[in-house]
Amino acid sequence: MAEEKTIGITVKKSEDFHSWYEQICLKAEVADFAPVSGTMIIRPRGYMVWQHIVDHFNKEINDKLGVKNAYFPLFIPSRFFEKEKEHAEGFAPEVAWVERKDEKEERIALRPTSETIMYDSYARWIRSYRDLPLRLNQWCNIVRWETKDCKMFLRSREFLWQEGHCVYARADECHKETLLVLDNYEEMMKELLCIAVLKGEKTAAERFAGALHTFTVEGFMPDGKTLQMGTSHDLGQNFAKAFGITFIGKDEEQHYGHQNSWGVSTRLIGAIIMSHSDDKGLVLPPGLCDDKFVIVPIYKDDTKELVFHEAKKLLAGINEQGFFDDRDSYSPGWKFNEWELKGIPLRIEIGPKDIAAKQVIIVPRDTGEKRAVPIDAVCAEITTELGAMKKRLYDKSLHRLATHKKSADTFDSLVSLVNSGNIVSAPFCGEKACEGEIKFESGGITTRCIDEHTSNKNCVKCGKKAAFSVYFGRAY
Amino acid sequence: MAEEKTIGITVKKSEDFHSWYEQICLKAEVADFAPVSGTMIIRPRGYMVWQHIVDHFNKEINDKLGVKNAYFPLFIPSRFFEKEKEHAEGFAPEVAWVERKDEKEERIALRPTSETIMYDSYARWIRSYRDLPLRLNQWCNIVRWETKDCKMFLRSREFLWQEGHCVYARADECHKETLLVLDNYEEMMKELLCIAVLKGEKTAAERFAGALHTFTVEGFMPDGKTLQMGTSHDLGQNFAKAFGITFIGKDEEQHYGHQNSWGVSTRLIGAIIMSHSDDKGLVLPPGLCDDKFVIVPIYKDDTKELVFHEAKKLLAGINEQGFFDDRDSYSPGWKFNEWELKGIPLRIEIGPKDIAAKQVIIVPRDTGEKRAVPIDAVCAEITTELGAMKKRLYDKSLHRLATHKKSADTFDSLVSLVNSGNIVSAPFCGEKACEGEIKFESGGITTRCIDEHTSNKNCVKCGKKAAFSVYFGRAY
Repeated sequence: MAEEKTIGITVKKSEDFHSWYEQICLKAEVADFAPVSGTMIIRPRGYMVWQHIVDHFNKEINDKLGVKNAYFPLFIPSRFFEKEKEHAEGFAPEVAWVERKDEKEERIALRPTSETIMYDSYARWIRSYRDLPLRLNQWCNIVRWETKDCKMFLRSREFLWQEGHCVYARADECHKETLLVLDNYEEMMKELLCIAVLKGEKTAAERFAGALHTFTVEGFMPDGKTLQMGTSHDLGQNFAKAFGITFIGKDEEQHYGHQNSWGVSTRLIGAIIMSHSDDKGLVLPPGLCDDKFVIVPIYKDDTKELVFHEAKKLLAGINEQGFFDDRDSYSPGWKFNEWELKGIPLRIEIGPKDIAAKQVIIVPRDTGEKRAVPIDAVCAEITTELGAMKKRLYDKSLHRLATHKKSADTFDSLVSLVNSGNIVSAPFCGEKACEGEIKFESGGITTRCIDEHTSNKNCVKCGKKAAFSVYFGRAY
Repeated sequence: MAEEKTIGITVKKSEDFHSWYEQICLKAEVADFAPVSGTMIIRPRGYMVWQHIVDHFNKEINDKLGVKNAYFPLFIPSRFFEKEKEHAEGFAPEVAWVERKDEKEERIALRPTSETIMYDSYARWIRSYRDLPLRLNQWCNIVRWETKDCKMFLRSREFLWQEGHCVYARADECHKETLLVLDNYEEMMKELLCIAVLKGEKTAAERFAGALHTFTVEGFMPDGKTLQMGTSHDLGQNFAKAFGITFIGKDEEQHYGHQNSWGVSTRLIGAIIMSHSDDKGLVLPPGLCDDKFVIVPIYKDDTKELVFHEAKKLLAGINEQGFFDDRDSYSPGWKFNEWELKGIPLRIEIGPKDIAAKQVIIVPRDTGEKRAVPIDAVCAEITTELGAMKKRLYDKSLHRLATHKKSADTFDSLVSLVNSGNIVSAPFCGEKACEGEIKFESGGITTRCIDEHTSNKNCVKCGKKAAFSVYFGRAY
């Protein structure tokens, strides 16, 4: 056999999380660096994950919310940004522009988000209450010219996302659906991504530029950092007033619309990798894989025919999607390593002894525990094993979050607990300035979301009356 | 009833094709103009069509060819363009660039096509014959800074497309799959878009910048113009040599890969609109619609309850996706007009008399012919009607193409026949310079694809020995 040494992961997740993450992305062929600094390539194994997210979420928003997909241009005239002042200020530093042939031409931005370009059209399309609610979503690329260090999937100058943008006649409808989308995100993180999240409202300092309220789902990563995984913004009437989105109501009066916007991006792929993968390589929740299993034959020259015959028969009898690794030039051990690295959920081993015993060996990717299964029960066992794996991955994520949720009543204990890798609830006044001081003095600790409203407590930093308890952490 | 006048199409397709097309796009809410000149918005009714094309084609290329999807960056360093000279020259005029903060920085292009950015990675990823064939595809936005008048879907500064890029060990494999993809395009145009195409090779003048051979499928539009609907390029080893895409073969020698690339874009939506729609509005092939039918109730106050009850019962019993238009504030006539404008394939009318006769009226969008159908046969009749409509649309497109395919032996008759709205086969020398003269002297006639190899004929323009007969036309 023309054996080649498999090039596995050479650092441990527990020892050098950053290098480990990068190796997983590169060696499992999930992503690669691209030539323009801060950009990246999503390779097929990464795009597969994204496609499953796209398909799942499209179905959810279409069936449950009646949202329709559309596509608005990448190009946004600079005057649009100026219409909503907070929004403009929030995005200004990271907007990339198209090179002009002539200085007199208006500058054209590459979308850092699409509120402005979409709402300009909404103002033309919406006339009457009959046109509402208007619920659109788009899947597209987004450009933000980051100056900080980029990290694959987590911070890059271009990424893919969905952005939903809805208009309602009433504030209560708008707010209700803002939260409904957030619930959908939480459900998707659990059911499809197998990640437990904290759900809540952002403080004023972390709110989306131009929104009344920003709600978030935050994942907790194995390195003790939090990751903002999805946000849903109640925009109130801020943009409606800036863009003139009005409708004639049943009362025959003119009103401004109420709006929300919400999105998740390819950074979810980063969250999935960090949450589940291990020192052997990628671990993917089964729902995000095209191929759920690989059959690896174990044979010598004189047993090849028998084993291949049985393996093919086995494959033909399984409903789930998977494949038979019939490559002759690699040993079983090499194949085990390769499919562990790439994150195929189940490995099925079949050799002469197994055939004699009318069994196969099933090995789930996450536990690596071998289990003999009667050959005529394989189909059902695959379903069971995939379900069990999904549950294990989620439970592990939930356990990680639960055991790292702490609370603090003083600034020192807050910093100390966050610095030892926790997400910490503490009483907070809610003021932007105070939050800025916390971030500065702690070297980067930020609020992640509001925990609960609290009374009779004082802010851990300024000592003023606390508006609520907030989760603090270090975030990607 | 709060009746509103429906705003239908106000020009005839036969009288002012250009304005008619624009009205269909706008009034059927397929698309809209966007603020940056030459850009457009794809509204839900247009995006729906694109989504069906995406889903269909993804399945085809994945199942039949083993192509996997990926995503490469929008941003391409300028030095990449310079690597393949013809390619660089071909795209230079329409490349848009990112504004630089500093003149010393390398210029960054917005992808006008992705050969260069993808092949830079291919050169790193491919090592051995075992890595081949490598077959990737991406769905993305493309930027070409057109200076000619833009036309929705047909020419815009940003559009959506798929681009497949494959590498093979052998030239024959590469060529074979280049043609296989073209066959898949032809099949999709027929089965999904209901459009008949001419299929063939492009001449040197119309070849993709950097390719050995370009193959095309060309649709013939009702205004007598042709539309390039999809292309598949055999790139040979041109890019492999420019980017250093080499592999160690079974012979342990180093070889350059053989490559192809192929794509279709959102201009297909334009082809669909032009081919099938009429003076009442949009006509869509059923396979491109989410909703295949609408049930319109015909009632007065005293029959509303009965009719709504029966309509809902009817809807519940139909397998195909459709909806019941239960809006009380619009008359049946208004609803007929709206759904004709929007292009719902079938209308089902139900009123008290129909209910008494245990029937409904089915009206296919394209013929507008009413037919009574027994209520318990509706489900089967819908399937039949949708199939028949699909066949009629394709047959009409095929008939249009067949009756406008002409041939000419002189330059004058070529020009005259093309100018009267035909696509004309004529003997041609194959030279770029001669083709340039034809284009210039005729005010824009170009070759569309090679018809057949011919002997003993002379070029209609220069009189030299003809290399083949070529289809000439005016193209979008």
